Amino acid sequence: MNNLPLITALTDFGTADGYVGTMKGVILGIVPGARLVDISHQIAPQNVRQAAYVLYTAYPFFPPHTVHLIVVDPGVGSARRPIALRTPVGAFVAPDNGVLSYVIAREQVEAVVELSDPRYRLSQVSHTFHGRDVFAPAAAHVAAGVPIAALGPPVEDPVTFPVPRLGIAPDAITGEVLHADHFGNVITSIGQLVWSGDDLLLEPAFEKDERAQSARLTSDAARVIVAGHELRGVHRTYAQKARGETLALVGSEGHLEIAVREGSAAQRLGLRPGDEVILRKG
Amino acid sequence: MNNLPLITALTDFGTADGYVGTMKGVILGIVPGARLVDISHQIAPQNVRQAAYVLYTAYPFFPPHTVHLIVVDPGVGSARRPIALRTPVGAFVAPDNGVLSYVIAREQVEAVVELSDPRYRLSQVSHTFHGRDVFAPAAAHVAAGVPIAALGPPVEDPVTFPVPRLGIAPDAITGEVLHADHFGNVITSIGQLVWSGDDLLLEPAFEKDERAQSARLTSDAARVIVAGHELRGVHRTYAQKARGETLALVGSEGHLEIAVREGSAAQRLGLRPGDEVILRKG
Amino acid sequence: MNNLPLITALTDFGTADGYVGTMKGVILGIVPGARLVDISHQIAPQNVRQAAYVLYTAYPFFPPHTVHLIVVDPGVGSARRPIALRTPVGAFVAPDNGVLSYVIAREQVEAVVELSDPRYRLSQVSHTFHGRDVFAPAAAHVAAGVPIAALGPPVEDPVTFPVPRLGIAPDAITGEVLHADHFGNVITSIGQLVWSGDDLLLEPAFEKDERAQSARLTSDAARVIVAGHELRGVHRTYAQKARGETLALVGSEGHLEIAVREGSAAQRLGLRPGDEVILRKG
Repeated sequence: MNNLPLITALTDFGTADGYVGTMKGVILGIVPGARLVDISHQIAPQNVRQAAYVLYTAYPFFPPHTVHLIVVDPGVGSARRPIALRTPVGAFVAPDNGVLSYVIAREQVEAVVELSDPRYRLSQVSHTFHGRDVFAPAAAHVAAGVPIAALGPPVEDPVTFPVPRLGIAPDAITGEVLHADHFGNVITSIGQLVWSGDDLLLEPAFEKDERAQSARLTSDAARVIVAGHELRGVHRTYAQKARGETLALVGSEGHLEIAVREGSAAQRLGLRPGDEVILRKG
Repeated sequence: MNNLPLITALTDFGTADGYVGTMKGVILGIVPGARLVDISHQIAPQNVRQAAYVLYTAYPFFPPHTVHLIVVDPGVGSARRPIALRTPVGAFVAPDNGVLSYVIAREQVEAVVELSDPRYRLSQVSHTFHGRDVFAPAAAHVAAGVPIAALGPPVEDPVTFPVPRLGIAPDAITGEVLHADHFGNVITSIGQLVWSGDDLLLEPAFEKDERAQSARLTSDAARVIVAGHELRGVHRTYAQKARGETLALVGSEGHLEIAVREGSAAQRLGLRPGDEVILRKG
Repeated sequence: MNNLPLITALTDFGTADGYVGTMKGVILGIVPGARLVDISHQIAPQNVRQAAYVLYTAYPFFPPHTVHLIVVDPGVGSARRPIALRTPVGAFVAPDNGVLSYVIAREQVEAVVELSDPRYRLSQVSHTFHGRDVFAPAAAHVAAGVPIAALGPPVEDPVTFPVPRLGIAPDAITGEVLHADHFGNVITSIGQLVWSGDDLLLEPAFEKDERAQSARLTSDAARVIVAGHELRGVHRTYAQKARGETLALVGSEGHLEIAVREGSAAQRLGLRPGDEVILRKG
């Protein structure tokens, strides 16, 4: 019962066209009992970094036998490789374009292979929809129990992009905006922040080395500087401010977040991915 | 077979960020065989009343062993209680902010408890994402068979907001706009209307007392007054009018509805939730 | 295991209102073990042709025991018949308004019936939501094994609309724009194009007669004329052009497609369904 095949899907396909449904049809033709969970299909077209971030927030909450299927694939039809990757916390099937960067940075990678064995593709492979013809079948076969090593030859050098900025100095921590969510909450690369009484411990998020540099600060004394604004203190929850007020807090992924209570910080402060964020210790 | 665990989800999370998928990962980690059905994730942010209405239209059509998970939670991180509620037609897991008002008004409430037992939460509970850390685990455990009483202490006074306006006078029934749907059809609080030949019987919708005041009117003679317009007659279906015409009819939930055939009544008449609607008997 | 009941859903309901979830509740009340897959719920309201096209791209990728539930139903409450249709590649439950035109054109139709037997409807049928009250229950019963013939009397003349334009002349093939997808890729009726070395074979897509007229052309020499533009060559993949360039290629359904690499051809060229497209052989 614990190992019912489970596949998640994360794409930039939108939900209007039937592309996602088509991939699910392919999957259920191969592994009829698979459970299918949508992570998101509203990644901005071809935005590999956004997909990498959304994946990072979701995969840790799935059981370890889950297969995560990610198709944000600006290079479809080019020489970019389709790959599968195995870790102790899940398997990942995706184009080799950096979308697995945070997984590779954080998890123990047990195997990476190129999806080349034609037995694990559709019999006809189009040049433009590898989600349907290459990635979905591979994910289905992995969920059905095919070992990753059977899918193709090892890949030694999967593509990764640099992890987000996170500079730790004695007085200040410097990071960048990663993502603005549906509510307009702005998540930054300054994480993971863990509460220890009224202090915060910073343990770099995109790093599996436990000896990575860390930092400690006092939440009340801290200041956040972003887009020319200074916010006082790092809070625990939106409810610590009145409706409409801007605040900095520790978000649900343990990252420093800028929010407006029952409003949109992204809109009010005009923040965009890549914008600098500074967390001063006092 | 009839009692496969079944959980619905209704949130204001949108579908771009992966928050909904993350909750499903948590659920399937607890109850791998659960069936998951989305009701909506496009409730306007923090709009508890809209969520209450959408829930009201959907839950009666699910089997009685269903667990309905509702996370529209402007008070996350404040003192608002997370609760679970059991009725003969389903269980409900939600913040205690009124989102279950219509359920409480209509159904026999067998138990309400506060979700406080840490065994039925994630081991780490964030301050900002109780959907993932508190509500999803509780719904999963209830679907897996944990009795609601085990989740925490009884709640005697769950929050409810007043049921929508419905005034019954000899000549006219007065109500309000509840919701405009995706098609622009405008649903009002004047319900439930049941056909009896060409007459309509009004049996107040948000009321379990069968002795509640009711009313009878003749569909042809009736007039609907809304936003300065008067519509003649209450119809059975859009097809009774030509394309582009405005009409009043009995909608699929048995409520008086204002529609434009193959068009948007919400847009044409500029109607918004709370606007007054009068149904004159003749 | 191969015949777990599997039902897809394709509607114009949007995902905000809970209508889709309500249909799923009805289905799971009848066939608790059904797998449910969304094709799309974002068909433009009442756009039967768009729904027919999206269905055409998706159904061939589902297992043959799948039941496809399609509810795009401008005539709800009128005399239009609700129907079910059986083919060797799947069953289809839909209003009789042409939405199954491409299925009927391409597949061997084994049976068509009108959904009239009250045993396979909800006990109360509204006048405005047959998706919930008529179509969803029928799809559930078919998925559960009820033979289509049991649902009602045969229908001899299901409604179909003319298949899309496809004119084959010695020098040129003439078609029309069918659809612009989420990425802005524009799919035309010129299909299906199959690669044979550097040549393309055209085998009319919406036609089950194998003796239908076909055509052959050389991809490099071909020219595509659309909206006053001439595009040189028919390509295999977006990656053959630089970012931002417009190209013609064979899309994932085997149809001639107009695209802008990492951009929107629909927007740049202002193309709309019905616009003429000419493919000159050289």
